[in-house]
Amino acid sequence: MRTESDSLGQLNIPKTAYYGIHTQRALHNFPISSQPTHPELIRAFLEIKQAAAKTNATSGNLDRSVAKHIVSATKTLLNNPIDLSMFPISDIQGGAGTSANMNVNEVIANVALEQTGRARGDYAYINPNDDVNMAQSTNDTYPSAGKIALLRLLDPLLLELQNLIDALGNKADEFSTTYKMGRTQLQDAVPMTLGNSFHAWLKPLLRDDLRIKTARDALYMLNLGGSAIGSGINVSYHYQVHIVPNLAGITKLPLTQAHDLFDATQNLDGLVALSGTLKTLAMSLSKISNDLRLLSSGPRSGLLEINLPAKQAGSSIMPGKVNPVIPEVVNQVAFEMFGFDATITAAAEAGQLELNAFEPIIFRSLFAGIEHLTSAMTTLRLNAIDGITSNKSRLAQDIDLSVSFATAMTPIIGYQEAAKLAKESIRTGKSLRQLAEKKSCFTPDQLTHIFKIEDIVINARTPEHGLVLHAPTQ
Amino acid sequence: MRTESDSLGQLNIPKTAYYGIHTQRALHNFPISSQPTHPELIRAFLEIKQAAAKTNATSGNLDRSVAKHIVSATKTLLNNPIDLSMFPISDIQGGAGTSANMNVNEVIANVALEQTGRARGDYAYINPNDDVNMAQSTNDTYPSAGKIALLRLLDPLLLELQNLIDALGNKADEFSTTYKMGRTQLQDAVPMTLGNSFHAWLKPLLRDDLRIKTARDALYMLNLGGSAIGSGINVSYHYQVHIVPNLAGITKLPLTQAHDLFDATQNLDGLVALSGTLKTLAMSLSKISNDLRLLSSGPRSGLLEINLPAKQAGSSIMPGKVNPVIPEVVNQVAFEMFGFDATITAAAEAGQLELNAFEPIIFRSLFAGIEHLTSAMTTLRLNAIDGITSNKSRLAQDIDLSVSFATAMTPIIGYQEAAKLAKESIRTGKSLRQLAEKKSCFTPDQLTHIFKIEDIVINARTPEHGLVLHAPTQ
Amino acid sequence: MRTESDSLGQLNIPKTAYYGIHTQRALHNFPISSQPTHPELIRAFLEIKQAAAKTNATSGNLDRSVAKHIVSATKTLLNNPIDLSMFPISDIQGGAGTSANMNVNEVIANVALEQTGRARGDYAYINPNDDVNMAQSTNDTYPSAGKIALLRLLDPLLLELQNLIDALGNKADEFSTTYKMGRTQLQDAVPMTLGNSFHAWLKPLLRDDLRIKTARDALYMLNLGGSAIGSGINVSYHYQVHIVPNLAGITKLPLTQAHDLFDATQNLDGLVALSGTLKTLAMSLSKISNDLRLLSSGPRSGLLEINLPAKQAGSSIMPGKVNPVIPEVVNQVAFEMFGFDATITAAAEAGQLELNAFEPIIFRSLFAGIEHLTSAMTTLRLNAIDGITSNKSRLAQDIDLSVSFATAMTPIIGYQEAAKLAKESIRTGKSLRQLAEKKSCFTPDQLTHIFKIEDIVINARTPEHGLVLHAPTQ
Amino acid sequence: MRTESDSLGQLNIPKTAYYGIHTQRALHNFPISSQPTHPELIRAFLEIKQAAAKTNATSGNLDRSVAKHIVSATKTLLNNPIDLSMFPISDIQGGAGTSANMNVNEVIANVALEQTGRARGDYAYINPNDDVNMAQSTNDTYPSAGKIALLRLLDPLLLELQNLIDALGNKADEFSTTYKMGRTQLQDAVPMTLGNSFHAWLKPLLRDDLRIKTARDALYMLNLGGSAIGSGINVSYHYQVHIVPNLAGITKLPLTQAHDLFDATQNLDGLVALSGTLKTLAMSLSKISNDLRLLSSGPRSGLLEINLPAKQAGSSIMPGKVNPVIPEVVNQVAFEMFGFDATITAAAEAGQLELNAFEPIIFRSLFAGIEHLTSAMTTLRLNAIDGITSNKSRLAQDIDLSVSFATAMTPIIGYQEAAKLAKESIRTGKSLRQLAEKKSCFTPDQLTHIFKIEDIVINARTPEHGLVLHAPTQ
Repeated sequence: MRTESDSLGQLNIPKTAYYGIHTQRALHNFPISSQPTHPELIRAFLEIKQAAAKTNATSGNLDRSVAKHIVSATKTLLNNPIDLSMFPISDIQGGAGTSANMNVNEVIANVALEQTGRARGDYAYINPNDDVNMAQSTNDTYPSAGKIALLRLLDPLLLELQNLIDALGNKADEFSTTYKMGRTQLQDAVPMTLGNSFHAWLKPLLRDDLRIKTARDALYMLNLGGSAIGSGINVSYHYQVHIVPNLAGITKLPLTQAHDLFDATQNLDGLVALSGTLKTLAMSLSKISNDLRLLSSGPRSGLLEINLPAKQAGSSIMPGKVNPVIPEVVNQVAFEMFGFDATITAAAEAGQLELNAFEPIIFRSLFAGIEHLTSAMTTLRLNAIDGITSNKSRLAQDIDLSVSFATAMTPIIGYQEAAKLAKESIRTGKSLRQLAEKKSCFTPDQLTHIFKIEDIVINARTPEHGLVLHAPTQ
Repeated sequence: MRTESDSLGQLNIPKTAYYGIHTQRALHNFPISSQPTHPELIRAFLEIKQAAAKTNATSGNLDRSVAKHIVSATKTLLNNPIDLSMFPISDIQGGAGTSANMNVNEVIANVALEQTGRARGDYAYINPNDDVNMAQSTNDTYPSAGKIALLRLLDPLLLELQNLIDALGNKADEFSTTYKMGRTQLQDAVPMTLGNSFHAWLKPLLRDDLRIKTARDALYMLNLGGSAIGSGINVSYHYQVHIVPNLAGITKLPLTQAHDLFDATQNLDGLVALSGTLKTLAMSLSKISNDLRLLSSGPRSGLLEINLPAKQAGSSIMPGKVNPVIPEVVNQVAFEMFGFDATITAAAEAGQLELNAFEPIIFRSLFAGIEHLTSAMTTLRLNAIDGITSNKSRLAQDIDLSVSFATAMTPIIGYQEAAKLAKESIRTGKSLRQLAEKKSCFTPDQLTHIFKIEDIVINARTPEHGLVLHAPTQ
Repeated sequence: MRTESDSLGQLNIPKTAYYGIHTQRALHNFPISSQPTHPELIRAFLEIKQAAAKTNATSGNLDRSVAKHIVSATKTLLNNPIDLSMFPISDIQGGAGTSANMNVNEVIANVALEQTGRARGDYAYINPNDDVNMAQSTNDTYPSAGKIALLRLLDPLLLELQNLIDALGNKADEFSTTYKMGRTQLQDAVPMTLGNSFHAWLKPLLRDDLRIKTARDALYMLNLGGSAIGSGINVSYHYQVHIVPNLAGITKLPLTQAHDLFDATQNLDGLVALSGTLKTLAMSLSKISNDLRLLSSGPRSGLLEINLPAKQAGSSIMPGKVNPVIPEVVNQVAFEMFGFDATITAAAEAGQLELNAFEPIIFRSLFAGIEHLTSAMTTLRLNAIDGITSNKSRLAQDIDLSVSFATAMTPIIGYQEAAKLAKESIRTGKSLRQLAEKKSCFTPDQLTHIFKIEDIVINARTPEHGLVLHAPTQ
Repeated sequence: MRTESDSLGQLNIPKTAYYGIHTQRALHNFPISSQPTHPELIRAFLEIKQAAAKTNATSGNLDRSVAKHIVSATKTLLNNPIDLSMFPISDIQGGAGTSANMNVNEVIANVALEQTGRARGDYAYINPNDDVNMAQSTNDTYPSAGKIALLRLLDPLLLELQNLIDALGNKADEFSTTYKMGRTQLQDAVPMTLGNSFHAWLKPLLRDDLRIKTARDALYMLNLGGSAIGSGINVSYHYQVHIVPNLAGITKLPLTQAHDLFDATQNLDGLVALSGTLKTLAMSLSKISNDLRLLSSGPRSGLLEINLPAKQAGSSIMPGKVNPVIPEVVNQVAFEMFGFDATITAAAEAGQLELNAFEPIIFRSLFAGIEHLTSAMTTLRLNAIDGITSNKSRLAQDIDLSVSFATAMTPIIGYQEAAKLAKESIRTGKSLRQLAEKKSCFTPDQLTHIFKIEDIVINARTPEHGLVLHAPTQ
């Protein structure tokens, strides 16, 4: 054990611990979540501390050799996987992230001290607050680190989103001439192609991609240099001007500094807006998953239109049962994201005056939402979409028996008469074609037209263009 | 009473009713909400029907005189306030809006029949389905009408949002040199100006404006021409090509046709995304309202920084009490919008296959959300923001007594020593200046600097620029 | 116009208006919702004012003739439908309901003045605040009136809930021997009866009934006598003791007085809990509606197990189409209730210190939620459940072709071998019975047992008892 | 590596793994959450498997020596901390928990095989499905295990809730004569005691305790014996009758069997209702935390009524700053629970027909919600409530300067005149007493009464009884 002290008194710290008294107090205060600070948040914090040390050294406020040791310590930490035993505080914490910031300051100081051959806790030489945290506040470093972490986590999400779009597009092409019944309100409507379905599933994802990228723009703008509440107290002119460019260089991200640092410190509307776009993506994915589960229902008493690849035994008691387990897990991730959005909105709304004290739960929720959505899209693509096949004979049979052709009759015999024929077909079980051929109200040409899908459904074959390209036959 | 019939049988209709049997059935089926279809939705429907009649006449599919009567009827209806007794169906309805569409078809047919001297219900001459609804489906007309209504309702919202931004900007200017204590986590932090507060309130609204406008773009794209499920069944080539341009002319809106009409018919991601931006605006407004209520707390035992204009007696029992009733109503509208967003997300996620049957509750929620937010911003501006005054003496006193100057001491004596002084000040009640002047650790120049707000808080006076423009004194 | 004055100044009031200056100011301040105060809230307010006048007269604090006129005015108002032009303020309002309370005070005073031949506004004789509001505060009257209104609105909800349970029970009996395939995860599982389905739908509703009634208990406990913040300021001992019993007599409700009036004034946990039970009911109804829509999907390419009664033409373009419009409207009411619950939770959480200023949006949301759920249950029962029929031949065919009998084989040949047979059946299209009869691994008795539903599904026939009553055949 | 096979084919399994092929497939299919199955869920599963083996042995369906080995394996596993490397599947998973069940079956089989000296994977002797899972389905074991896990997790929650209530009660007693200003809408209202505040905070928690316990009752009722969909397929009469009593004996919980096993298998209304009560508790805790943060705001420019114990340095840059970090973490846990409730409701609503496939996300959310709320209450009590002190001089000064005494004047001079005096006091800064003493409208006795808190606020001193006990002075 070693002893450290702060303005509240003294505390024993495990001798081997790289963290110090502030972390120790936080462990006591926040025994909440078993999940520690997210590694990407720590990495971003380390980059910020490195940039700050460099900038403070150049401005002349920080001793150059101290700065060198701080920079070296951050590099050592960044070059290895984050050791979470160094950063053990619950990611749900009070204090607006002060504990996470203090933890990083302490670990860097002690790693630097160790590298210079000094004992841990020898803060007279390198001080976590005065040196590592120089010109900074939790108010500006915590949200900045959070934004950088989000940027890093969004990359794989956007990649997987694009992969999923491509996979759906391939299937849309594959099934571009596979005709099937379309449904509204779960009732048979009029024919379309299975390619139309896949195309209609991917289009919202294209818009989700755009919405997420637009919302992402807000993340590049940081409030570093604002220190406490955005006031810039204890921040040198040099630091204000150079900290963000320096950090941009280190992170290789196009970071900029907010114009109004008070605004950028207290307002989290950008995170709520980002959450809204993730929730919309979740909704899109859930809708696709619902449709996949419906269309693959069966194997005997369902819609049977498509087959999902069998990925595992579906039941511990019913042999041969194969269930749509992949879409089901996607649904659940979507429902989870709905909840995250509610949490994020409540936490953002509760922010008061110059700071939102509830940033930790917001970042935690965004991190988990992004990671789970990313994984869900990966498994949806690889374990479901890519292996989908269609039941062509069933699809054709459904169309033959359908009363949807009554719609094509209405320009000739009117809505009311067509409705009577449709009802007769359902009542008698005879196909509409059988019934129509006995009626004198249609010419042979009209009959041919009415039952020719390509004629009546002018958009079915052209999902990529949408609007009809061929003039009608008449 | 007159008698009408449909494929389900006959029904008596009040003789004076302009609506017909489909409306009558809907009244029976949906005794849910006391609110009928929104007038803006009806207006948009009338414009669509007018455009359709014109287009169908040009294509040769609709008798020109019938088309003329339909157009004339829609003009008559549009030139007057919407008579809701004609459109009595609950705005919460099953059937994906079919009843609302049928209702409009019937009213137009009967008004047209009346204008030609025929009896209501004489549909052999002008038929609600075959003529008024020609080449259309509820699948394409209902969401298109809903989008146009949203566009119309967003105009006043965006205007009031801009007005509110301007009002906050005026106050930011007015208070640009009114210094006050900033707070984090409701605890005194460091000084800033009251202008900084107002500026920090308006900045998210600028971003909300942009986010809403970006989300609005999705509303201009309609699925008209898709008829049932986007298939284009019963739609002539001419109609497909001309219906949206014709409607754009009538509505004077830059409407376009969706590229993939299946997508545009079944997916409501654009509405969920719009709702997300409205929810974010609601969050921003609620945060402002919370801050206003905090800063105006008092009159004796509160923060007392600002005064809201007294708008009504605050209490039925406590004389002289004046409450922040305007921010309070804004908070409530925000909480309502949070709920609308939850409803909209759930309803959008529940959409299946080629159509979302739950559009009515989505549009209803969006309409109410937009209208309530608009009104809330109006009253917030006129009855609160515009009349805010500051309590200058209180603000100055708060700064004088604050221990925030300890922060400015840390570059000289370090975090730990400064913390000791701050604690001594709080314990003894002596001001930090008194204590500091007795210490030998500060030079007179340093003391001057430490207690000069303009020096230590480099961003406080420059809300419009954010970043510091003047080099520090040293 | 007449002129009234309050502590903020003078204002012109329409000469015919029964309301006064406080209402006039509120109209100006809260131009939010087009819905005025709920009539049931006004009725409850009138009853409270009547009880208060009687109690204050008995205590000697209120002139007996003034009290008599106040009581007479409330009786007149209660004996007629509520005239909403008297109570025009938006139901979404700031001030924690002060405006609604003031409005009621003013209308009662002016009606009383009119009944005594005096001019409206002659408050020297009967004063809205000093007389009508004597010993009261908005803090205690508004939530008390709200609770009474909720109690009144819950009666029809509970009645309709019971009616729906009965209707589902009748159908459970009707279909108690109609065998069908059960499904998990939309995939065929093992047989059951259609009666089991209806029984499984009604059971949660029985629990919802109990949960709502338990939550309702909190509504009987009022904070009258607490006046401002629960302190009882300006409340006589006599009033404190007698106001709630007197009100119980007038309302014929078993009302009681809260033990801790501070608690009862500031905490709305009881309303949040009630909302939670309504949300759970909404969830139950939505699940039933989803299942009804699934099982009635078709008419050709769906599950086709049951038929919902045709209630209206399903489409404006597709003749003969009949859609599940009734369950669809129920779904939407459920999604709306989910949103109401989010709004109510946010508003309750935002309450600060001795009062929740956001009661108006909470009551509004509860009122609408209860009324819409009530109507939704009525139409679900009358227009859907009561008329459901089954497609017996389809149900029997589904069972014959199913591979669910493989489950019954596992005790004999094991899970793995049974799974092979099931897969062979699906691949070849041959029924499991055909395949099994060719295998030597089953005795004739075993085969009989495996394919006898009554034997393998021991619970199917006994939904009302649940647990099997007959010993197995072996 | 060893090779295992199922109906989908063969797969390599790590030689040392206790799990088998079904777990291996699940790892591939669900790379979602880094959190594996909750240990309490596994423990409950092990108890169920033990009870099943015993019951199946008694019924004669399971070889007694196999049963003995299964029971022995479950005991070994239960007697040690759960080794999560045996149960590695993401707790968010498709398949309604089938993978979790299969995983448990496999681990038990392999531990049992090991104990008999056989190789892992030698399922001919002890089979995961045929033996360990005999007479069971995931449909009945997974939700039953989930309910038992919830019961176990609710115990510490209810204990901490009671501890918190006690701590608040102690403070209510401590401050029972500490007078302070009450506030409505953040504006000064009338006096009360600080004890009233603490009492008003604890009362909702008493109700939360009752609500959670009522909701908990639903967890004792299990659907074991229902096997697939509640049908009881492959379940012996003996097993049906004895499985739940046997499990009750093993778990020492008063478990019962559901009357309608179809209902109990498909409906999760009980879990939604439980979530609603947890959300209400979260709301109560958040309201308390909000109030604590408000009342402790300062140290100079705030309300300063109470002091929270200093638990850690509040800022990395502002020395001496102490923040309300404990209430802040409670707020965040509450916001998280709001989100969990949204997720749970969405997932429950999405359940279709005979099973809800989304149970895993529901249990995960409930587990985390309960655990986080429990920890939050612990830290709130120990690190905040227990150490609260009051600022008596400030509280007294606030009352002296307040205009709340105007309320006590209204019975004598009326609301309007009293309002004038209150406004004069605020405008001039003179105390109401000073102003009143100069007026001729009050007798000396009246003045004494008006400014004597004990007289005017009749409930203030009697929080435990609520209703006034002493007759007024007149």
